[in-house]
Amino acid sequence: MRTVWLNGEFLPETEAKVPIFDRGLLFAQGVYEVTPVIDGHFRNWPHHAARLGRSMELARIADNTDWPPILNELIRRNALTEGRIYLQVTGGAPTDRDFLSPLPPVPATRFAFTQAAPVVDQPKALEGLRVILHPEGRWALRSAKTTQLLYAVLAKEVSRDAGVDDAWLVDNGMVTEGTSANAHIIDSRGVLVSHPVDHGVLPGISRLSVLPLAQDMGLAIEERAFSVEELFAAREAFVTSATTVVMPVVEVDGRKIGDGRPGALTAELRKRYVERLRNS
Amino acid sequence: MRTVWLNGEFLPETEAKVPIFDRGLLFAQGVYEVTPVIDGHFRNWPHHAARLGRSMELARIADNTDWPPILNELIRRNALTEGRIYLQVTGGAPTDRDFLSPLPPVPATRFAFTQAAPVVDQPKALEGLRVILHPEGRWALRSAKTTQLLYAVLAKEVSRDAGVDDAWLVDNGMVTEGTSANAHIIDSRGVLVSHPVDHGVLPGISRLSVLPLAQDMGLAIEERAFSVEELFAAREAFVTSATTVVMPVVEVDGRKIGDGRPGALTAELRKRYVERLRNS
Repeated sequence: MRTVWLNGEFLPETEAKVPIFDRGLLFAQGVYEVTPVIDGHFRNWPHHAARLGRSMELARIADNTDWPPILNELIRRNALTEGRIYLQVTGGAPTDRDFLSPLPPVPATRFAFTQAAPVVDQPKALEGLRVILHPEGRWALRSAKTTQLLYAVLAKEVSRDAGVDDAWLVDNGMVTEGTSANAHIIDSRGVLVSHPVDHGVLPGISRLSVLPLAQDMGLAIEERAFSVEELFAAREAFVTSATTVVMPVVEVDGRKIGDGRPGALTAELRKRYVERLRNS
Repeated sequence: MRTVWLNGEFLPETEAKVPIFDRGLLFAQGVYEVTPVIDGHFRNWPHHAARLGRSMELARIADNTDWPPILNELIRRNALTEGRIYLQVTGGAPTDRDFLSPLPPVPATRFAFTQAAPVVDQPKALEGLRVILHPEGRWALRSAKTTQLLYAVLAKEVSRDAGVDDAWLVDNGMVTEGTSANAHIIDSRGVLVSHPVDHGVLPGISRLSVLPLAQDMGLAIEERAFSVEELFAAREAFVTSATTVVMPVVEVDGRKIGDGRPGALTAELRKRYVERLRNS
């Protein structure tokens, strides 16, 4: 049984519970981070900590938990070598339901848990993902990593119904991102095109690390939205996230991207980023 | 101490807790209803039950709880005469986090609680609400009553910071609705204008009941979005919701609506709707 952490206590996973009045449960006033764990160490923490701070500010959640010792202890207690750590902070649990946060404030609810999973060796990295296009319908404040995730859940379930791996979201003919990953192409000219980091997409930590690696490889980079037409004409397509790291996309709406196999540049980017995670 | 209900049990309010893995907490996969209670009876149940069913279908939550006996027992145990009952259903609590719902499904999480509050005699009904306009930024599927509520929370907190009661949301110059209430005007011609019930706004139960009452009063009704200009030129403005019932709006962004006092037609509508709630 996993040990998880909740509001200062390490608990068996089945005993970690929050009141029904928690603002995370009633209003989705919750923000979260997912950090990759490789070789028993969590990675990229300064970037995750900075984004968590920005998400909390947007969601009006105040908290100053010192996360690194907690994450280290979770890794130790669960003997985690590879996978990820999920952590969430909510607006806390007042004694009743009111849209307005209580004054004076209640303490934030904070919890974290580990998930063991392959990060370096993922079979899908060799096969590539098959995705469908799906209309963008999420809220406007997508630069914060909040728990307004039902739209992503529904798009993923539509993908599962369609027998594919995931969905890419499309707003007015332009791709925003995947349901839980940033989306990128290497276009017909060989340029890496990636949606700029604004309110349209999540400022992904993996994206942040991968773009300089692509630059090192000599790739030209354009940070702009790309159209569905550009996607279909692209040489390669891939996603980046803490869970998938760098993962090729080989098929979109039943049409092959490039020759329908994982792209060579994507594979090289994945290799370099995994190395960088190992040595960070 | 209140008695609340959670997954089949009546519990003291401080003991009702859900696992941190609940999909309502991690993904905001939750839907809810708020029914007004007057004279110790909950009202409009068939409408709330129908909407709850539609919300669950959209959110891919399966559950067939027989709510009326539970709500009656909550009213009895809490000696509630006036106020409301809140109930919520989530995608349940699997043993781990995954965007995709588990197959086979886990049972939905279900809970409900009472809130004592004046419904008939609310001081604000005599004063009127002061609201600000705020950009619409919620997700696309607003016809379902889900817990994607952080945008509404933030807009209400901006209103509180501004020293007013609430915010009305504006999309491309047109008012969609309040943060937790449908918005209506009686325009410069004396016509009641109300946003049509589509994905842009919640199909409010109070709205559903109030529009026919307005028709009985001889008011012409147009179900269409109204612009900010129409709002400022309106004779009266008001909101409808389970909490406010019918509530006048007398000031928007610091500008008076009509003569800046609660409108006579709004007051009459409120009176008739309260009578109808009493006798339903």
